[in-house]
Amino acid sequence: MAASGDIGIVAPVQLRFDDTLILQSGKALDGFDLTMESYGDLNGDRSNAVLVCHALSGNHHAAGRHDPADRKAGWWDAHIGPGKAIDTNRFYVVCINNIGGCDGSTGPNTLNPETERPWGPDFPQVTVEDWVHTQALLADRLGIDAWAAVVGGSLGGMQALHWATHYPDRVRNCVALAAAPKLTAQNIAFNEIARQAILADPNWLAGHYQQASLTPTRGLSLARMVGHLTYMSADGMSDRFGREVRENPAGPTSEQEMVFQVESYLRYQGKQFSTRFDANTYLLMTRALDRFDITNGFAGSLTTAMAATRSRMFIVAFSSDWRFSPARSRELVDALLASGRPVTYAEIQTDAGHDAFLLDEPHYTDLFRAWMAKVAI
Amino acid sequence: MAASGDIGIVAPVQLRFDDTLILQSGKALDGFDLTMESYGDLNGDRSNAVLVCHALSGNHHAAGRHDPADRKAGWWDAHIGPGKAIDTNRFYVVCINNIGGCDGSTGPNTLNPETERPWGPDFPQVTVEDWVHTQALLADRLGIDAWAAVVGGSLGGMQALHWATHYPDRVRNCVALAAAPKLTAQNIAFNEIARQAILADPNWLAGHYQQASLTPTRGLSLARMVGHLTYMSADGMSDRFGREVRENPAGPTSEQEMVFQVESYLRYQGKQFSTRFDANTYLLMTRALDRFDITNGFAGSLTTAMAATRSRMFIVAFSSDWRFSPARSRELVDALLASGRPVTYAEIQTDAGHDAFLLDEPHYTDLFRAWMAKVAI
Repeated sequence: MAASGDIGIVAPVQLRFDDTLILQSGKALDGFDLTMESYGDLNGDRSNAVLVCHALSGNHHAAGRHDPADRKAGWWDAHIGPGKAIDTNRFYVVCINNIGGCDGSTGPNTLNPETERPWGPDFPQVTVEDWVHTQALLADRLGIDAWAAVVGGSLGGMQALHWATHYPDRVRNCVALAAAPKLTAQNIAFNEIARQAILADPNWLAGHYQQASLTPTRGLSLARMVGHLTYMSADGMSDRFGREVRENPAGPTSEQEMVFQVESYLRYQGKQFSTRFDANTYLLMTRALDRFDITNGFAGSLTTAMAATRSRMFIVAFSSDWRFSPARSRELVDALLASGRPVTYAEIQTDAGHDAFLLDEPHYTDLFRAWMAKVAI
Repeated sequence: MAASGDIGIVAPVQLRFDDTLILQSGKALDGFDLTMESYGDLNGDRSNAVLVCHALSGNHHAAGRHDPADRKAGWWDAHIGPGKAIDTNRFYVVCINNIGGCDGSTGPNTLNPETERPWGPDFPQVTVEDWVHTQALLADRLGIDAWAAVVGGSLGGMQALHWATHYPDRVRNCVALAAAPKLTAQNIAFNEIARQAILADPNWLAGHYQQASLTPTRGLSLARMVGHLTYMSADGMSDRFGREVRENPAGPTSEQEMVFQVESYLRYQGKQFSTRFDANTYLLMTRALDRFDITNGFAGSLTTAMAATRSRMFIVAFSSDWRFSPARSRELVDALLASGRPVTYAEIQTDAGHDAFLLDEPHYTDLFRAWMAKVAI
């Protein structure tokens, strides 16, 4: 057994679904693959399964390491593991790469069976509804009638909310962190700028860059810089970078070449991302985010939507998150209260901005662990 | 005489300065040109001159129209004219295009005398200090010992602050609107993303696009989208655009092609800007903004800097301005109070964000007019 708190070595599995999948757009996929990781063991009653939904740039690799030499663990290793908030001693935890993603599940860089070439820009637009649909098919495959909990942050939180409102009998507990009922005009504008950065890259080639063995690295890097900037808070950035100037190892920096640390940091983040992510997927994911509106199907009423839930609800916001501010989470809380549904709300004081949901901040971690400890299995 | 409040037809003039100008960087310009507009008449004592300093994307054309058919008046026509806050019945108002600009003053798209080709990327980096220096040379030329007032918003406000701290005997009144003592890491990060957008454009050609008769239109457009987004408030954008989808005149919009109004608006703003502005100037201006720090030369102390002023000070902030938030203006106010200097502070309630300083919002306009009415001439 791994050391306490450490989940150890994990490996993804590939699951094939042969039935035709009709997407919300009306388009169809002639079967699809999901790449999945799981942590902990499914109990005999199949009652201890927790679904973790990933956000824009995430994937199925939520915890542990694929290789002991991996520098980094999965993206939510802080909260998944033995004794952690999502306690693998109690829960069987499942995380998949959503369709349209770029880490193994069917998406723009997998083969289009009709052409036997990568889908690229021809991959159909997917939505939060489509993702939850495929996650429900996965639950069927695993024999899981109802998740003990569906949990996610940001775009992952939106999937958790969609589960709770559209599959109320299949979710006993729902955790939505740093989420919102839908995007604001400002949110959409930031996504649009990121998309335009990709579309402006000369290597974009109308999305057919793979066929030319090129990648729109610069556009994708710029898109990530825009996104990453909105995940941090102004105060957090001031504390971390201030107006520090990067030292030039080649000697004193001339006035002309002066580069602030924050610029150097953002460029690095953008560059790293552009080596691991797919540009077509980035467009699909941001479009899915823009289009999400939890009141769809509920006559535009948030209260009606929340009244459809049957799960215990945990809504968490982070004080310095200006991408999905606490006010957006409180809209959910107000609607849950107005519809007489049980809800716990926590607003975590932090300078870490939107990305705080990924981190191990003591107050947050303690609340998250305490709430999950009450999830019956 | 023009109708009350309307300044009528104006025309820029070109002024040549032959002396060598040593820039803060140590580099020299072998003379330079300033493009200037003026409104109202200089009085016999030359005591009624007001200098208006422009912001990042502004120029000398602050008020009136060049031609009766001009669709738009100058950028600050709301506040410059007979009976307006900067009352041309009382004041002689001067506005120049700063050096490094792209509207007539010496800058990247004027000729480098050494090569007889446009300066392009070889134009030296300029600073707020350099701009104020050239504005002081202009005052000398006009025989103005002291400005009745130096006034500016955003980057223009920073110039006003530099005047008040470095030429205290030449400024009797100072107005800094939507300004800050220096940029935060977040501010710098947004500017850096805008710069990277320009640098990533295949038409950028290391800044030598003019020689190839090209323009990095797409990069400049994207840079403007980033900037423009930060000039608006989240609430203002929600009120104006919400989640409205643009109607497609060609018929019903497919799910794939859905475009939110806010996206269409930002693209339009970016495109318009890219037809009138110069990319090398954009880089110079944002760099000048990043590097500005009013405490330079005052041992890093804002109180010491403000103690150097001798002018009546008016600091104005706008509630929804998150680029230079009211907290940044209050730093200036606190430092002025701590150093025993007279200051009036107004925080205007508005959803218009950073750009509010350009607009005619009744409460703001009234306060601005009332304060300027007390400027002795």
